Amino acid sequence: MEPPKRRRSTTRARLLAGAQEVFAERGFHGASVEDICERAGFTRGAFYSNFGSKDELALALFQSTTDRLLEQIAALVPALADRPESLLEAVLGVLEEAGPDQRQWHLISTEFTLHALRDPAAAKAWIEQRAAFRQSLTELVENLVESNELKMSVRPDQFVRLVIAVHEGARAQSLLEPGDVPAGSLERAFLPLMLNATLS
Amino acid sequence: MEPPKRRRSTTRARLLAGAQEVFAERGFHGASVEDICERAGFTRGAFYSNFGSKDELALALFQSTTDRLLEQIAALVPALADRPESLLEAVLGVLEEAGPDQRQWHLISTEFTLHALRDPAAAKAWIEQRAAFRQSLTELVENLVESNELKMSVRPDQFVRLVIAVHEGARAQSLLEPGDVPAGSLERAFLPLMLNATLS
Repeated sequence: MEPPKRRRSTTRARLLAGAQEVFAERGFHGASVEDICERAGFTRGAFYSNFGSKDELALALFQSTTDRLLEQIAALVPALADRPESLLEAVLGVLEEAGPDQRQWHLISTEFTLHALRDPAAAKAWIEQRAAFRQSLTELVENLVESNELKMSVRPDQFVRLVIAVHEGARAQSLLEPGDVPAGSLERAFLPLMLNATLS
Repeated sequence: MEPPKRRRSTTRARLLAGAQEVFAERGFHGASVEDICERAGFTRGAFYSNFGSKDELALALFQSTTDRLLEQIAALVPALADRPESLLEAVLGVLEEAGPDQRQWHLISTEFTLHALRDPAAAKAWIEQRAAFRQSLTELVENLVESNELKMSVRPDQFVRLVIAVHEGARAQSLLEPGDVPAGSLERAFLPLMLNATLS
């Protein structure tokens, strides 16, 4: 039998995986805690001993995804630290593969943003989590600019906000029209140009 | 008494205005045809003599907003046709003021995109409507490039897709964090730079 701590983390992981599927199918609002428990094969008791609410579970899901993204990005840096443009392209590749399924991830994260726009408590948590993610990326850009003895004509945190805006806006177009806008195509066509235009 | 045709168009306009409010408050899925009729002060009969479904009403709402945007943009062109960068900035100003309320417009259009990602019939109509809007903007860019005897290193329709992606992605950040990301600030910081980088 698994030790209690290990069992607890397996339960969490299975609840997160079940929630991701149910959210993508029925929407964040359409998915109930019961639906998630049923999909993951647990009781409501197991749910509430791991998460205080559906919001808390969604935030844990985003945290695990952004943690994984940051790990993947950090692993790219050593080989590409002297080639900012190649590193940007590699980072875009990682963002494209966010989560096990780009469509599910887009549906869930966009719905949570809409939820946050109507719910101040959700907004506070979501803003903090996104800020921590952006901060890690901003430090990456700052280190890159410094170690390559470059100058950037815009603030690194603003450049990171731009990358996220282009990525999220372009992803909606790619999912809606995959034939006309292959995943990552707008990001790859414009963001390296933009990086070049801001570096000297 | 109003003539029947005029009365019909007033009914449509009031249903559209009521729907915009109810959608923004309760979400596209949370708002029922009954809610919309109640807000606008009409019966379900009046609704269904104007619109075949809630989707059809939402699409009419988007059409009226994009028609107005394109009119406002067309009005800017004569004075700025020889200054692409100033025209881009003026167009961004128009996009920022899309609809009577930027927050409502963002909530409704983002929700409809999510709906379209789950519903092929809605996707078809939404893709067509967005394509027509982009086509008008693409022609504007093409005319601008030609009349100023410039060359653009990217396809004008791709540049238009980028503007929309940046605008939609940045708007989510602005609505969530209005203090840190004033409306339009990311667009104004980066899109003129990008235009410059692609024109020669």
